Amino acid sequence: MTPSTPSPERSAANPSAVLRAVRDIAIEDRPVPQPAPGEVQVRIGAVGICGSDVHYYEHGRIGDFVLDSPMVIGHESAGVVTAVGEGVDPGRIGQLVALEPGVPCKSCTQCLAGRYNLCPDMQFFATPPVDGSIAEYITHDAAFAHPAPTGLSAEAAAMAEPVSVGVWASRKAEVTVGDRVLITGAGPVGLFAAQVARAYGASSVTLTDLSDYRLEIARQLGFQAQRGDDPLSEGSFDVLFECSGAAAAFKAGMRALDRNGRAVVIGMGADELPLEVFALQGRELTISGVFRYRNCYPAALELIASGKVAVEPVLTHRFGLAETEQALTLARREPNSLKAVVAP
Amino acid sequence: MTPSTPSPERSAANPSAVLRAVRDIAIEDRPVPQPAPGEVQVRIGAVGICGSDVHYYEHGRIGDFVLDSPMVIGHESAGVVTAVGEGVDPGRIGQLVALEPGVPCKSCTQCLAGRYNLCPDMQFFATPPVDGSIAEYITHDAAFAHPAPTGLSAEAAAMAEPVSVGVWASRKAEVTVGDRVLITGAGPVGLFAAQVARAYGASSVTLTDLSDYRLEIARQLGFQAQRGDDPLSEGSFDVLFECSGAAAAFKAGMRALDRNGRAVVIGMGADELPLEVFALQGRELTISGVFRYRNCYPAALELIASGKVAVEPVLTHRFGLAETEQALTLARREPNSLKAVVAP
Amino acid sequence: MTPSTPSPERSAANPSAVLRAVRDIAIEDRPVPQPAPGEVQVRIGAVGICGSDVHYYEHGRIGDFVLDSPMVIGHESAGVVTAVGEGVDPGRIGQLVALEPGVPCKSCTQCLAGRYNLCPDMQFFATPPVDGSIAEYITHDAAFAHPAPTGLSAEAAAMAEPVSVGVWASRKAEVTVGDRVLITGAGPVGLFAAQVARAYGASSVTLTDLSDYRLEIARQLGFQAQRGDDPLSEGSFDVLFECSGAAAAFKAGMRALDRNGRAVVIGMGADELPLEVFALQGRELTISGVFRYRNCYPAALELIASGKVAVEPVLTHRFGLAETEQALTLARREPNSLKAVVAP
Amino acid sequence: MTPSTPSPERSAANPSAVLRAVRDIAIEDRPVPQPAPGEVQVRIGAVGICGSDVHYYEHGRIGDFVLDSPMVIGHESAGVVTAVGEGVDPGRIGQLVALEPGVPCKSCTQCLAGRYNLCPDMQFFATPPVDGSIAEYITHDAAFAHPAPTGLSAEAAAMAEPVSVGVWASRKAEVTVGDRVLITGAGPVGLFAAQVARAYGASSVTLTDLSDYRLEIARQLGFQAQRGDDPLSEGSFDVLFECSGAAAAFKAGMRALDRNGRAVVIGMGADELPLEVFALQGRELTISGVFRYRNCYPAALELIASGKVAVEPVLTHRFGLAETEQALTLARREPNSLKAVVAP
Repeated sequence: MTPSTPSPERSAANPSAVLRAVRDIAIEDRPVPQPAPGEVQVRIGAVGICGSDVHYYEHGRIGDFVLDSPMVIGHESAGVVTAVGEGVDPGRIGQLVALEPGVPCKSCTQCLAGRYNLCPDMQFFATPPVDGSIAEYITHDAAFAHPAPTGLSAEAAAMAEPVSVGVWASRKAEVTVGDRVLITGAGPVGLFAAQVARAYGASSVTLTDLSDYRLEIARQLGFQAQRGDDPLSEGSFDVLFECSGAAAAFKAGMRALDRNGRAVVIGMGADELPLEVFALQGRELTISGVFRYRNCYPAALELIASGKVAVEPVLTHRFGLAETEQALTLARREPNSLKAVVAP
Repeated sequence: MTPSTPSPERSAANPSAVLRAVRDIAIEDRPVPQPAPGEVQVRIGAVGICGSDVHYYEHGRIGDFVLDSPMVIGHESAGVVTAVGEGVDPGRIGQLVALEPGVPCKSCTQCLAGRYNLCPDMQFFATPPVDGSIAEYITHDAAFAHPAPTGLSAEAAAMAEPVSVGVWASRKAEVTVGDRVLITGAGPVGLFAAQVARAYGASSVTLTDLSDYRLEIARQLGFQAQRGDDPLSEGSFDVLFECSGAAAAFKAGMRALDRNGRAVVIGMGADELPLEVFALQGRELTISGVFRYRNCYPAALELIASGKVAVEPVLTHRFGLAETEQALTLARREPNSLKAVVAP
Repeated sequence: MTPSTPSPERSAANPSAVLRAVRDIAIEDRPVPQPAPGEVQVRIGAVGICGSDVHYYEHGRIGDFVLDSPMVIGHESAGVVTAVGEGVDPGRIGQLVALEPGVPCKSCTQCLAGRYNLCPDMQFFATPPVDGSIAEYITHDAAFAHPAPTGLSAEAAAMAEPVSVGVWASRKAEVTVGDRVLITGAGPVGLFAAQVARAYGASSVTLTDLSDYRLEIARQLGFQAQRGDDPLSEGSFDVLFECSGAAAAFKAGMRALDRNGRAVVIGMGADELPLEVFALQGRELTISGVFRYRNCYPAALELIASGKVAVEPVLTHRFGLAETEQALTLARREPNSLKAVVAP
Repeated sequence: MTPSTPSPERSAANPSAVLRAVRDIAIEDRPVPQPAPGEVQVRIGAVGICGSDVHYYEHGRIGDFVLDSPMVIGHESAGVVTAVGEGVDPGRIGQLVALEPGVPCKSCTQCLAGRYNLCPDMQFFATPPVDGSIAEYITHDAAFAHPAPTGLSAEAAAMAEPVSVGVWASRKAEVTVGDRVLITGAGPVGLFAAQVARAYGASSVTLTDLSDYRLEIARQLGFQAQRGDDPLSEGSFDVLFECSGAAAAFKAGMRALDRNGRAVVIGMGADELPLEVFALQGRELTISGVFRYRNCYPAALELIASGKVAVEPVLTHRFGLAETEQALTLARREPNSLKAVVAP
């Protein structure tokens, strides 16, 4: 099977950031991959670093996913289409695309019902044993390479990944005009989710965190912000996005919900959260867990392109591909940082 | 204000089962109440005994609701309209009605939005200081005195209350054709909720309990039934109704839910439930708390009248008004019992 | 029953704009009404003129509602609370309120289900025989006198009525981030609904009309605008708000909807609309009719107060109470006008 | 690519019912198709005849779909898996499967959102130029070959197609306990949809038709039935399934809907339906168009297997493959018939 367009040099170098073992990143020169039917080949322009990347780097595993063999790291990525496989419009060559990192089987019950994020056969960038995207070139299913609106940078387009988490949370909680939204945890996900909730019409958004640095950025973005150890008025919010992973934050957030309130559990950290029955029943609260997102990339890209979601204040540090390891250790070295981006 | 119809003798005896203090029930002769505008006067035909009645009898309080002064007990009731207040169709006299026990303010944000069960000013039978319905005569808002379909007994109509709990749970969980429903706890609420779920189209309903007596009744009603300490297959249910109030049952039930599963927390018991994040997020589960019900009585009555919900197998014991205390102590005395009904 | 607060002089003049017959408005001095229990007395600050007011003035009827006796006209109103009836917080005196014009029975099936706009016993301002609100003083159910956010003018608060129509349409169509919205008809309702749709997150809003004056105002508000007789691309919108009442606009709008599109029929005019089966089925379109609104005033007021909905560009003409008749004939005299407001 | 299992003789005869032109069916011997990767090969056991098959036979086209070259007819089919392509579990050989006739692209926006029935690249049995299923052997996407529950006949399994139309309508209208359902048109689709609505919990189902024969079958199935030219009480139904394709039936059905009623337009016939604005708005009705179905086969099969949907009363005539033309002309020859099945 040959791609329907002139391929880049097959012998070209394809430097890739490979996680070989815990705290062991190497820049390896891998073969340039050729697009299979239905795929695009993309020259990566930017890859954001996510907490899960750092977790694999530090621990070599997340839950049942274990790093058994070397794996390219990174999954929040965007770049330019450089070749297309059979059946893909060659007009897409040159297009800037945001890469939705998980490609499902498309045929199981979950996929056919539109819940493809719950597909048991999902192939997801940088989830062992699937390679990630910190590389010069990668290939990807064309349907999951979303065209970026005109004028967007690769860096901004790459942020469609964490912004999609916020889109999915706003959809799950049905955030709308009139809602008072509480977000516990003002890291990158919380700050993006806050901006998304505002775009969905939320009347007010309040973020809590233990970091004054993060609270300050939340305020600069126009949100209310308060320390996570300060008390919240009972019944004063309609929606909770728990983004901290802390059991105490969940408990306090649930108590702060008003009648008919909706909570979405986004953060990972605590294995078990304490669910108080009195508020759950007495106020008829609803709790949804979210797993990544589905059908959210186009909306996320539009929100970024329109300026409704500003990515600049969250993208605090930039690195070259050769500096991937520094990007992965940034959070540990520099508490006053938010998100690092690697530009191959 | 006089009722628009001849009232029964005002001086008539109105024996009422009054909870005066913990484990202290007296049959007092109270004045026959006259219907205010918009109300009906009802001669009570049957009142089911609920766990909350027993709890007030045993402990004198539930949460913030404390028995400070003598209160008529009972809230699952039906009877015949004997008089109507101004503005109520006199044609209703003689009608058998099921009494929805909570009357909301009708004007607050929750009420106007149709969520009247969350009204902060709800007046609910036998929730201190509001009197309940184990009495010869009571008055009630005509809109909450639901006409029973022809042929129903007062006893069966009174069961619209616990059946409504099941209706509300099925609506919250959006139970429908194809769903595999798990119900942890096969007491009266669980057994009614199981039948309701089947009427909503559920493909299969499985009940768990620690009582072999209850499991046997579940089987006789056509359900699958297994001991609550036996393991459940992971991911084998779409819907969980937690009716036991036990933390372990909730935890096991949540693990048994498949992707996109929905849990409804109905049972009261544990103050706090353990919420495992891995399943909640990885399978995108949803949890709803329910507080009583709203707009469910007509559906409940129809299900009973059509035979889709059989009340006979659940109504195991019957008492006269003078025996109310025995009805309240039945569960303690006789493990192999389900629901007691008092017929004034 | 006396109000719980000092009442204004009962003998005070209460000039009111009374529609006595077709094209016959008189300013009558009516008694100042006193608030019944649960009511507020309001000194009216502003009343917008709606097409239905004009229709009663011109024709003396709308459908089954016929002007049989003199009736105060007007229903888009706001003013300051001057007295409260029993059971209403006296602290509300002095509060600026927007008056939701329809008060339902609160007890029927529709009301208890939260669909109070479908109550068969609705009492609605200026719908025969119920008096409207162009008067110095009126009384109203306190629950339907919505507190205006600080800083709002009476004129702006009165616009909560037509803005609520837009809120209700956006809720019915579930307008959200990513939606391309088409609005046929750029009169006051269309222009408000367009701004509301944008606040609900719509990606783009396009208005059509046959008036270049209205299209220009739509453009000034930041919307795309095109003549209603220019063709629309097939399948290029997700949502249609039909606000013109014209059958041709509905037909063209339906053809312009994409797969899974949602149409809301707001405009009144044609008795019958042509529904093409091919598009309805082939693209699985959904059509909703709306009747006024429910539970929308708080959101409407918030959108106005936040500036997300600008009322100034729509409020083109202002009149005193004595000039009510000129306000009612404005549209006929002056094509380049949008909405008139009467300030008693 | 070779199938992973022993293929039946490639040279074997594969008699197929080919529509060569209007009213011109021939039984041709075509090659036995071999399953591609992800496909199953099925020996067809039964194929129901649908109105659209008859329409192609009579007119050679439906809308934009024109019979330009010979095409195998039929699309309501079931049979036994005889071979599997690469990637399909060989354990499926021998399995009775119901064949969902439309296979979508699985990658477009509609497919990924779970709305695969709206996929613009759908390949659907017997929709030109795609061959249908009245043949000895066909191949099909394994994900759209749904395992039939144990004990089902091929004939009953084939009925999953028209039953799915009813499932989809019940889902669109959110039919549930308490609903009064009106079905205009008591042909096979109407009779199946009626049974499905009952399984979804509908309180009552009423069918109308102009054929006394059909009304009698409706009554035998336990439904209320009345002539379509008899008047319907206004506001007496919650749900309308329009299955006749007649404009008058739609109009009468819409008038018969109560407040908050939902209509689903299933029947094809009239190009344009008359939509009365007064009822649409005044009662806030909702109308949905449906296009085939999605994700409905498992539920349909379960309803058939459980006996909740009886297929026997609808399957009035049976034919061999060689008699396909007689099956297609049955409706014209014999008014007192419902559905014909061809058994190759």
